[in-house]
Amino acid sequence: MTTSDAHTPASAQQHDTTAPARALGAHKAYVEGERAGLRVPVRRVHLSDGRALTLYDTSGPYTDPSVTTDVRRGLDTPRAPWIAARGDTETYPGRVVRPEDDGLQHTVPRGGAGGLDAVFPGRPRRPRRARSAAPVTQLAYARRGEITAEMEYAALREGVAPEVVREELAAGRAVLPANINHPESEPMVIGKRFLVKINANIGNSAVTSSIEEEVEKMTWATRWGADTVMDLSTGRNIHTTREWILRNSPVPIGTVPLYQALEKTGGKAEELSWELYRDTIVEQAEQGVDYMTVHAGVRLAYVPLTARRTTGIVSRGGSIMAAWCLAHHQESFLYTHFEELCEILAAYDVTFSLGDGLRPGSVADANDEAQFAELRTLGELTAVAREHGVQTMVEGPGHVPMHKIKENVELQQEVCDGAPFYTLGPLTTDVAPGYDHITSGIGAAMIAWWGTAMLCYVTPKEHLGLPDRDDVKTGVITYKIAAHAADLAKGHPGAQEWDDALSRARFDFRWEDQFNLSLDPETARAFHDETLPAEPAKTAHFCSMCGPKFCSMRISRDISERFGAESEAELSKEEIAAGMMEKSREFAASGNRVYLPLAE
Amino acid sequence: MTTSDAHTPASAQQHDTTAPARALGAHKAYVEGERAGLRVPVRRVHLSDGRALTLYDTSGPYTDPSVTTDVRRGLDTPRAPWIAARGDTETYPGRVVRPEDDGLQHTVPRGGAGGLDAVFPGRPRRPRRARSAAPVTQLAYARRGEITAEMEYAALREGVAPEVVREELAAGRAVLPANINHPESEPMVIGKRFLVKINANIGNSAVTSSIEEEVEKMTWATRWGADTVMDLSTGRNIHTTREWILRNSPVPIGTVPLYQALEKTGGKAEELSWELYRDTIVEQAEQGVDYMTVHAGVRLAYVPLTARRTTGIVSRGGSIMAAWCLAHHQESFLYTHFEELCEILAAYDVTFSLGDGLRPGSVADANDEAQFAELRTLGELTAVAREHGVQTMVEGPGHVPMHKIKENVELQQEVCDGAPFYTLGPLTTDVAPGYDHITSGIGAAMIAWWGTAMLCYVTPKEHLGLPDRDDVKTGVITYKIAAHAADLAKGHPGAQEWDDALSRARFDFRWEDQFNLSLDPETARAFHDETLPAEPAKTAHFCSMCGPKFCSMRISRDISERFGAESEAELSKEEIAAGMMEKSREFAASGNRVYLPLAE
Repeated sequence: MTTSDAHTPASAQQHDTTAPARALGAHKAYVEGERAGLRVPVRRVHLSDGRALTLYDTSGPYTDPSVTTDVRRGLDTPRAPWIAARGDTETYPGRVVRPEDDGLQHTVPRGGAGGLDAVFPGRPRRPRRARSAAPVTQLAYARRGEITAEMEYAALREGVAPEVVREELAAGRAVLPANINHPESEPMVIGKRFLVKINANIGNSAVTSSIEEEVEKMTWATRWGADTVMDLSTGRNIHTTREWILRNSPVPIGTVPLYQALEKTGGKAEELSWELYRDTIVEQAEQGVDYMTVHAGVRLAYVPLTARRTTGIVSRGGSIMAAWCLAHHQESFLYTHFEELCEILAAYDVTFSLGDGLRPGSVADANDEAQFAELRTLGELTAVAREHGVQTMVEGPGHVPMHKIKENVELQQEVCDGAPFYTLGPLTTDVAPGYDHITSGIGAAMIAWWGTAMLCYVTPKEHLGLPDRDDVKTGVITYKIAAHAADLAKGHPGAQEWDDALSRARFDFRWEDQFNLSLDPETARAFHDETLPAEPAKTAHFCSMCGPKFCSMRISRDISERFGAESEAELSKEEIAAGMMEKSREFAASGNRVYLPLAE
Repeated sequence: MTTSDAHTPASAQQHDTTAPARALGAHKAYVEGERAGLRVPVRRVHLSDGRALTLYDTSGPYTDPSVTTDVRRGLDTPRAPWIAARGDTETYPGRVVRPEDDGLQHTVPRGGAGGLDAVFPGRPRRPRRARSAAPVTQLAYARRGEITAEMEYAALREGVAPEVVREELAAGRAVLPANINHPESEPMVIGKRFLVKINANIGNSAVTSSIEEEVEKMTWATRWGADTVMDLSTGRNIHTTREWILRNSPVPIGTVPLYQALEKTGGKAEELSWELYRDTIVEQAEQGVDYMTVHAGVRLAYVPLTARRTTGIVSRGGSIMAAWCLAHHQESFLYTHFEELCEILAAYDVTFSLGDGLRPGSVADANDEAQFAELRTLGELTAVAREHGVQTMVEGPGHVPMHKIKENVELQQEVCDGAPFYTLGPLTTDVAPGYDHITSGIGAAMIAWWGTAMLCYVTPKEHLGLPDRDDVKTGVITYKIAAHAADLAKGHPGAQEWDDALSRARFDFRWEDQFNLSLDPETARAFHDETLPAEPAKTAHFCSMCGPKFCSMRISRDISERFGAESEAELSKEEIAAGMMEKSREFAASGNRVYLPLAE
């Protein structure tokens, strides 16, 4: 494994979504794999003591100053040669894009051809699908014992052997969402043996927001650490928004196809049909959606179980399917057509994210009959999907008080045979709208420690409005905290290195290193500067909490040095005790200086 | 028990620290006890469905529109008659306040007398102390079987029988910090059988901030829910700042007397002495400090245990005592004089908060030998304090990864014989300076669930700078979330009522009720208005996430109504199933309307 660095100039614009580096002093670097041309991006923090720390990087080519990106052209396609080389897929004309795909039933079709050309200006591309009925999924390859380029890539990011990734995929305990029509993506793996991942939701709605804003939200979210992004757009321009996002996204993109299907009916749930849904799935698979939330566990018989709940059904997908079931008094078409769905997803390597349409929307409804009845069905569907070679993860709640969280992971792992769990929060109390990134960050950290593989973020605007740029960042940082806290608690190899590097920088008063090692260097620096704005304070051997006169860290360093902790030698307790009197005399001889004057 | 309401006019200024109510529509109300004149303030939220929810209130007289407060006069003294009536205390001239108490060694003494008169303009008062050697503490009264007015008051706030409070205090499992020289305070109880409490730290430092700002921070913190406030001031005007805070504080005030003692030596730890410390304790006890952090567990022999730590000693008090021990090569004077200390605290009913001077300052140092050696000593000192009738709680860490948190509570409860645990966070990772309210809010919720009685807040500025007004609010709200999440998880009676009320309001689209029931109504309302600013949106039957066309809550309400959940009748599953076909037909007959037009 060799590495290369791409230095970031100090003039990098920190506030620009696609500025070259996360913070002054951070470098975009690459770790090269065994396979020719396989380069995995990392973020490298060079410390002032000459050491460096390498961190996982989700920000894509945008933060590499040697790469020029253009949102109208899209990203390069590193996966394209790998996909082609496998020889099990073919390009084909693809489904014709219709105005209805963008919710434009009542206007004239766009452009002449009505194809992707009209939707996205850069590099129109014919979609690709499996050449035969055999699945072209990472699960199928893993089961055959093949280590794909995608697996090697993900393994390098995780710092594990590629065989570990293959094993976990083959067993269904991990997924590697990588639609063959999203060759722009940088492969990553989701499973409890790996680093805990986080997802950021974006998406316009009928009420507000634009295509450009959504693309920028994606770039912004991945810049701060989102491992995947879900596009939950509703209303107009769904197809076009998604195309722009996919062509510019270095991370896997997830969707809830039901949302678009509903738009095509003009919002009438009872007019949904398997055929319409099927067509939407193909449409999105051809675009390159990496994973799809499918609420196939909302069965007719479970709907009445929600009637006496405090907050009924709060999942949009769940309530759409419940309405359809009620209107037709039939079993959900997602459930009855699940095997056909599997066949489609297998032909593009779209990963299932089995939706929890009956998740609790309040702590009062947590772990109730409706929720767990659906979960057992998701277990049954996980087994069916695996038979078809389709990668599968399972979604979880929601609103759950702390003492009921563990049961959720344990039951999911049991009934879904270890399939990756992907949870929204959970929120541990309902009383703090405006702060639900925090109410849910608590639950997220706990559930991830206990085995959840990916956490869907919650922003401060949850329950109140649509997240803006600041909310997206706050949500991502909060969830990076939850995920990393869980990595630490799980004893993930290497996780604590990061904490230790930052803590050592703090103890040594290396302020710049402390900022650069932070999850959010900009905020850390800004907060420090509010109290101690002068430049010398960046190297001051004190902080504003205790002031220059008496600093606990400074005294503590004295103690540390007095007892020779800087040396390699391991002293016994007896040696330390014996040396103590001597050290005490030295302390007195030094003038008992326990504080550091400003000038020093 | 009878109650009375003091209505808050709709014109209340929401952004003023002492505005009459937390939110439009909130009322200050009082619950009256058995004892004549005993009135416990509560916050009552009147809902638009005619119901009301009563919440714990820490905001003091400031939020009562019928009370006029004046920061120069101080608050009324509801406890004064109770204290006097017990007949076991007497007033006396008290210690003479000296310029050194305010760090003004080198200036002329203030005023003529140099007494409290010069320090605080309002109502100079002679201090009070025990008439004899018998302790005048709530612990002593509880052991004698007496239910004091303070106990009855705290019990009413908790919604438990006064006898429960007495029992917990007598067993040392709870404390009721109530210095006889702080008659302004509204009694409250800290113990694991009661609601989890939170503390907000304020305090100027050598670098920044003023007396007025500190008093305002106290009023601000209690307005948002701080149960106690610690004044950690250093530098100049410590005595005067504390006097202003105490005379205006409705909540118990804690301090770390060592900070002031160190100021009196000009910052030279080696010049500290038992005599100087003792004088400072008396000074603060006469002012009315309710609980004091005493780092008596930092013993000489434990100092070397910190030498090889990643971040040494991070507690300011701990490092001061370590420096003193090193300088003199003697056992800590706090440890050797601990019994004398107990005698002083018993004479004023000051509660011990046994400080954890060797707490870990990084996840690398969590649960190490130094930390637990000190904890065992705190257990020993807890027993000594109890023998002297002094109320005692024990402080805990700090920085602890999730998987090491539980051991902290369990060990503390074991070695301190169930004494209340009072923890700072803990922070579950070190990598997010600028977000340590969140890294620690996660740990705080967990440790409180497992038995911590009070949580010391951490603000976003931790490790970086001094908290301003916004940081104090963010810290308090974050910790109210952690505390309430723990109350829920512990199954505290009544805790879930609050969540359920808010969730029902959410499900019913009662936006105003949802705002008013929030921990922070201002922020909830502001966030909602950002996306949907128009007034009709406050009553809209949809929210900005899904828009008016398709709303999950709306559909869910349809389901709920269809299955008769609004009726009192309990239907069996069979009845529901039988009724379902019928309901489905009704649904179709209604035109399959699953969404609500804007105009409806």
